[in-house]
Amino acid sequence: MTALTDTATPTDSALAEVYHSVESEVRSYCRSWPTTMAVAQGSWLTDTDGRRYLDFFAGAGALNYGHNNPALKQPLLDYLAADHIVHSLDMATTAKTEFLETFERVILRPRALDYKVQFPGPTGANAVEAALKLARKVTGRESIINFTNAFHGMTLGALSVTGNSMKRAGAGIPLVHSTPMPYDNYFGGATEDFHWFERVLDDSGGGLNHPAAVIVETVQGEGGLNVARAEWLRALADLCHRRDILLIVDDVQMGCGRTGRFFSFEEAGIVPDIVTLSKSISGYGLPMALTLFRRDLDVWTPGEHNGTFRGHNPAFVTATKALEIYWQDQSFSEQTTAKGAHVRARLDEIASAHDGVGARGRGMAQGLKFADAARAAEVCRTAFDHGLLMETSGPSDEVVKLLPPLTTSETDLDSGLDLLAAAVAATSS
Amino acid sequence: MTALTDTATPTDSALAEVYHSVESEVRSYCRSWPTTMAVAQGSWLTDTDGRRYLDFFAGAGALNYGHNNPALKQPLLDYLAADHIVHSLDMATTAKTEFLETFERVILRPRALDYKVQFPGPTGANAVEAALKLARKVTGRESIINFTNAFHGMTLGALSVTGNSMKRAGAGIPLVHSTPMPYDNYFGGATEDFHWFERVLDDSGGGLNHPAAVIVETVQGEGGLNVARAEWLRALADLCHRRDILLIVDDVQMGCGRTGRFFSFEEAGIVPDIVTLSKSISGYGLPMALTLFRRDLDVWTPGEHNGTFRGHNPAFVTATKALEIYWQDQSFSEQTTAKGAHVRARLDEIASAHDGVGARGRGMAQGLKFADAARAAEVCRTAFDHGLLMETSGPSDEVVKLLPPLTTSETDLDSGLDLLAAAVAATSS
Amino acid sequence: MTALTDTATPTDSALAEVYHSVESEVRSYCRSWPTTMAVAQGSWLTDTDGRRYLDFFAGAGALNYGHNNPALKQPLLDYLAADHIVHSLDMATTAKTEFLETFERVILRPRALDYKVQFPGPTGANAVEAALKLARKVTGRESIINFTNAFHGMTLGALSVTGNSMKRAGAGIPLVHSTPMPYDNYFGGATEDFHWFERVLDDSGGGLNHPAAVIVETVQGEGGLNVARAEWLRALADLCHRRDILLIVDDVQMGCGRTGRFFSFEEAGIVPDIVTLSKSISGYGLPMALTLFRRDLDVWTPGEHNGTFRGHNPAFVTATKALEIYWQDQSFSEQTTAKGAHVRARLDEIASAHDGVGARGRGMAQGLKFADAARAAEVCRTAFDHGLLMETSGPSDEVVKLLPPLTTSETDLDSGLDLLAAAVAATSS
Amino acid sequence: MTALTDTATPTDSALAEVYHSVESEVRSYCRSWPTTMAVAQGSWLTDTDGRRYLDFFAGAGALNYGHNNPALKQPLLDYLAADHIVHSLDMATTAKTEFLETFERVILRPRALDYKVQFPGPTGANAVEAALKLARKVTGRESIINFTNAFHGMTLGALSVTGNSMKRAGAGIPLVHSTPMPYDNYFGGATEDFHWFERVLDDSGGGLNHPAAVIVETVQGEGGLNVARAEWLRALADLCHRRDILLIVDDVQMGCGRTGRFFSFEEAGIVPDIVTLSKSISGYGLPMALTLFRRDLDVWTPGEHNGTFRGHNPAFVTATKALEIYWQDQSFSEQTTAKGAHVRARLDEIASAHDGVGARGRGMAQGLKFADAARAAEVCRTAFDHGLLMETSGPSDEVVKLLPPLTTSETDLDSGLDLLAAAVAATSS
Repeated sequence: MTALTDTATPTDSALAEVYHSVESEVRSYCRSWPTTMAVAQGSWLTDTDGRRYLDFFAGAGALNYGHNNPALKQPLLDYLAADHIVHSLDMATTAKTEFLETFERVILRPRALDYKVQFPGPTGANAVEAALKLARKVTGRESIINFTNAFHGMTLGALSVTGNSMKRAGAGIPLVHSTPMPYDNYFGGATEDFHWFERVLDDSGGGLNHPAAVIVETVQGEGGLNVARAEWLRALADLCHRRDILLIVDDVQMGCGRTGRFFSFEEAGIVPDIVTLSKSISGYGLPMALTLFRRDLDVWTPGEHNGTFRGHNPAFVTATKALEIYWQDQSFSEQTTAKGAHVRARLDEIASAHDGVGARGRGMAQGLKFADAARAAEVCRTAFDHGLLMETSGPSDEVVKLLPPLTTSETDLDSGLDLLAAAVAATSS
Repeated sequence: MTALTDTATPTDSALAEVYHSVESEVRSYCRSWPTTMAVAQGSWLTDTDGRRYLDFFAGAGALNYGHNNPALKQPLLDYLAADHIVHSLDMATTAKTEFLETFERVILRPRALDYKVQFPGPTGANAVEAALKLARKVTGRESIINFTNAFHGMTLGALSVTGNSMKRAGAGIPLVHSTPMPYDNYFGGATEDFHWFERVLDDSGGGLNHPAAVIVETVQGEGGLNVARAEWLRALADLCHRRDILLIVDDVQMGCGRTGRFFSFEEAGIVPDIVTLSKSISGYGLPMALTLFRRDLDVWTPGEHNGTFRGHNPAFVTATKALEIYWQDQSFSEQTTAKGAHVRARLDEIASAHDGVGARGRGMAQGLKFADAARAAEVCRTAFDHGLLMETSGPSDEVVKLLPPLTTSETDLDSGLDLLAAAVAATSS
Repeated sequence: MTALTDTATPTDSALAEVYHSVESEVRSYCRSWPTTMAVAQGSWLTDTDGRRYLDFFAGAGALNYGHNNPALKQPLLDYLAADHIVHSLDMATTAKTEFLETFERVILRPRALDYKVQFPGPTGANAVEAALKLARKVTGRESIINFTNAFHGMTLGALSVTGNSMKRAGAGIPLVHSTPMPYDNYFGGATEDFHWFERVLDDSGGGLNHPAAVIVETVQGEGGLNVARAEWLRALADLCHRRDILLIVDDVQMGCGRTGRFFSFEEAGIVPDIVTLSKSISGYGLPMALTLFRRDLDVWTPGEHNGTFRGHNPAFVTATKALEIYWQDQSFSEQTTAKGAHVRARLDEIASAHDGVGARGRGMAQGLKFADAARAAEVCRTAFDHGLLMETSGPSDEVVKLLPPLTTSETDLDSGLDLLAAAVAATSS
Repeated sequence: MTALTDTATPTDSALAEVYHSVESEVRSYCRSWPTTMAVAQGSWLTDTDGRRYLDFFAGAGALNYGHNNPALKQPLLDYLAADHIVHSLDMATTAKTEFLETFERVILRPRALDYKVQFPGPTGANAVEAALKLARKVTGRESIINFTNAFHGMTLGALSVTGNSMKRAGAGIPLVHSTPMPYDNYFGGATEDFHWFERVLDDSGGGLNHPAAVIVETVQGEGGLNVARAEWLRALADLCHRRDILLIVDDVQMGCGRTGRFFSFEEAGIVPDIVTLSKSISGYGLPMALTLFRRDLDVWTPGEHNGTFRGHNPAFVTATKALEIYWQDQSFSEQTTAKGAHVRARLDEIASAHDGVGARGRGMAQGLKFADAARAAEVCRTAFDHGLLMETSGPSDEVVKLLPPLTTSETDLDSGLDLLAAAVAATSS
């Protein structure tokens, strides 16, 4: 196995002392990848030693268009240089006007989505918190249905619908008002869909508080690249509709083209009542998030949900540009689908060559699941030593997750996949 | 009364149609200030019609160093132009290293604050959520004491310690695990400090769940510019210490020099167990937040609290620069104190010239409270028509709040204060 | 169909005006059976008009030994006449001593149950509240697993683990800290046992708060006479044991011999960690309840759970006598089993003679389920008009529930079953 | 100091072994009074050794008419002997009819109280749970205001409004939806009434969830015989009325004549929206409770709150008789007032003779508070050794509480007070 670069493996000592002495123990990625990153372009990062890394992580999905995408960078520099508005809370600005108009023209109208747009604060968790608040306000109910292995964020509301027990324990208070239901294929296909959920909803003695909303990811990224089938999503949407429950699709990680189309739920043909977007919406890794909802659900009072960084205009600038460049026609979406298929074919190959390894994912969210969970981390470590960034996911960190920038070239994809294949081989006992 | 510019008053029609048709009803500031902002420099904004506005609002305290401060802008442009890392989650980057080292050198060490630093996500609410989670985790208790008219954010944990009843109702679920206590001077000085709080803490039959922490703002900005006296803060810190309760100072709005010193609690001579910072920490209005805490409280497990935009490097760049420029010696702090005293003197003058008007505030967080609450909004509207941006605060929106950039020149301060004086006069019946 | 008595059907006018004018609208049974009862003996009640009713309701299971059982009545009269202690909180009294000694000798020791006994207050809900408190205190966890269509009581803790949505709504606050799981046969036998519960417990990303305890009825009386199979109960006990979850059997309605043996869980061969008893424990319909638990779980602090009517000594007197008369050997238990089999055979006959009718139950808790739910109420009304008391149960009140006193003679059982058969026939369309 | 009887002091060995081996560690009174009671009459108990005890405890207020009151006993024996209905859930019975008619005629009508009557289950906690549920249902709000050192019961709803921290901890979950306010005289008279409560209610930014109801005891028995002044109660009722908050008076311990009139709130001239009664309502120490509420608040759905022992008819029989005997005219009430004044005079005498001792209470709920809290328990122990039963109360168990039967003769009162005086003297250092 050949490293992409010939620099020696960095060690924890490659981190400045200040990380050890001053940054909280909660720090995480700098432990997995103990080096200091300096510059980045497209799918590549370079650390302070000049060592280059191919990025199959992409800011956990925040960099769908790559690092420092030149087509977005120039408008950003121009905007900043001209002293346009940077910070505006929710005042009107030229950058915000352009974003809203472009988002409506390029995204909403062609999809016949009659959504209102809320700027809930700049993170995915903000978008989820606003979605949950609105769903409760609209319905007058408090309970939310989430799914096994869901991930929706770290603030108290978002955490209460997140599955991970370690992160839940961090709340320090009992997390209530949410009830988990089995995600698609949770029982390996052995049990009929929604058997339990539908039955208990129907049962006036079932003891389930009637939910305000269901919150779902179409593909659970943090949860281990669990893919919900289109027919499962349709059945879920239909169930919610029949029972007067709002359907929230959390598209923070899988939206903005990760699975092919702009929204990850488009392939299933469903129209959620509420949608959350963040991560790649700015296109440049800048903090930004949106909560979208059916026009008739817009019962907010002015200022009822506010926040200082709702008007992060540099993000609006790059977001607008990204929509214009990548989403005015189908080509980008088709390329992603094609690249995803290619990645998947390579992963299937790797999986078939090794026992206890299976490919999973959708579009450009793909990965390998290892029967021996510890092996996933070993593969990532080995890959990192050879210049490839990937992280694990899943309840036992048993899945190597690939989220390359969607703009990654086929050559780079193949280089990375070669390295991955080698790492898998190297860790086979 | 003369307007700063001679452009006609903008109206709601000055907003692009898309705000009405697509943005959620939750929008707020664009209703108060119905115009579209185009560029900004220092304490001045200019709208698309070329009309200029003097900014005594400063992004609700997020722009302490003014809009597009040139000393920060150039390093930001350089950083972006050179393709340095923009988005990094919590990987190590050169920008983050520099920020941590500078923050420790310029802020923590000179103040003998042995704090660990957490990047909890890019908003003040993130910082508060992390603070509450940590306090609960450390103590094993769930209850938090907040104060009347507190404001800490819109996510579920932060909202539960916020006082505003309209915003609380937005939660859609009962907000529990928090108990309000009277803020300093809540009874107009008639009642002894902490009478009730201390008494009920001591009483094993008092029925108050023993709190994990107290969360307090030294000056309540959103709450109406209520100022806690230094002796009250000291007594509170002492009470917390004696009862084994953690003291969280939420310095999101009053930190970063707003009241004079870097931290707003410095004058009182207290050392909180946990501190939150956001708004002006990046110096450029870019999303960024910190949670600081005593070294021995750093019981986080790696990754227990995470988030996509914890590593917003452009903000680290401007934050570092702002620390270097403004905080290496006492001069900036002293200038702020002097400007604050000047503003206050002018406000006292205005107040003494009108019935039912009182000055209040600390440092450069100053305002006028109106016995007739409606008059505050009228003053702000009138001022806006003449090119001055200010917002109201307080439970009945009865306070005109002034948060000018700390870098505002004395001339501009006086221009704004003249306009304010005229607006007060214009609204006197 | 012949009525047991020839008195005319009573109507609502048979109730004194005071029920309408003074008693709360919450009253219920006096609506179903609008007559005023005057005296009772064994399985028969007589109203103020001299009309007699055969009682297949038995105080919802509180009168397993019949009304005013003479063998219990005389000791009760003697005790009261001699001015023995009536009310004692939890002081020691001769009546309490005798009860405790008898309960240990007749019930606990022969079954090798090393339980401590708590007097939690005189109702089943008190017993459940104490059980839940203890389970949470022992484990340090807050979450409880209950089952679909469970009924455990009306106080806030007990209500939170009860399924009925109408009764839950009565709480006026969101009921949290409980998660329903499917009871045995919830899916008509189509799904493997504990599929969902076990899977989500195992999954560190499942999002289920790790439970302190599971609370279960072996037969759900209020829930519609749903019978858990012995193997299901064993599997549940085993699952709880393996996952370190306490198993609470709520035997308030099914204990004291209703299903044959003293405890309803004996046939399954399981030993719950905590058991609740009430209803028939006093033997005479007097308020009394017990919470039993494994000796090592007795972590209560003295006085931590108290209550005024924990020492209702007349109930101890009749309880002691009932244990002595009915439980010193197997004969009573065997008679109950035989009677139950007889009742079931008759119900099966009725069911097979009519479409949409099915027999269900265990021991002397038997009933008929109607595909057309409304018919169950019609059957009960018709039966009442002919002098037979029965109530409906189940989420849609679709089950006619028979809980005759266990002491009912075979002749009376057959008379009642004849009436039931006639009522079913009369309601067949 | 002379004992009332010459029997030797009993010891813990006077309890049967079964209390140690089988009853839960939660047992309490049998620890303070380690003897086994056998018979009782009026104000006297006799243990199994023939030792007699003068009862200044009276079942914690459940025996206002003394033990085994002959005037109630004979109707009870007759009722039972004649096989009248014992257990009836909420069916109509002759005993219930008579009780309701008598309660309306003797209690409600003369006081012009247009209350509906609910039988919420047989304990005070049941009555409180029903009151809280109804208040929440009526208002659609969830939060309840309780007072420092309140005691309302051990079930989860009642416990959440109880002050005692040891008992609260027994819940095993955070107790929420309640906020304590200072009871009358909590600050030794130094602070104006309702200063804090009224101020925070008025303040839309106060952070207090708008309450559904306030629950208050007019005299806090368990809380240490804290007496609310009539003017405080009137001001509270007025405040509740003005703010649209329901006022619940928990009269479980202080009702049924303990303070003089039937309801303890009568002297203050207020009319609560909801009232709870239990303890002495049956007159004979039998489990029984009532929840009373304004006719227009009776929004219960039939069966929404149910329970097995709501129809404990023997209690209705003695309750009816007690109303007829003691409450048809003012004489009993006047005697109680006179006896209370006598007791108080004697207590004032004792207090004035000793440092650190103060008398407190109202009507026949009187006591002594000791500056040295430990001394209260010592006094009770000493008194017990000489044949007098009294318990301590208050957050530090610093109050010796006297709740003699209201029927206690002046001679017996004086005998007991002599013993108390001697015990206080004996414990003075």
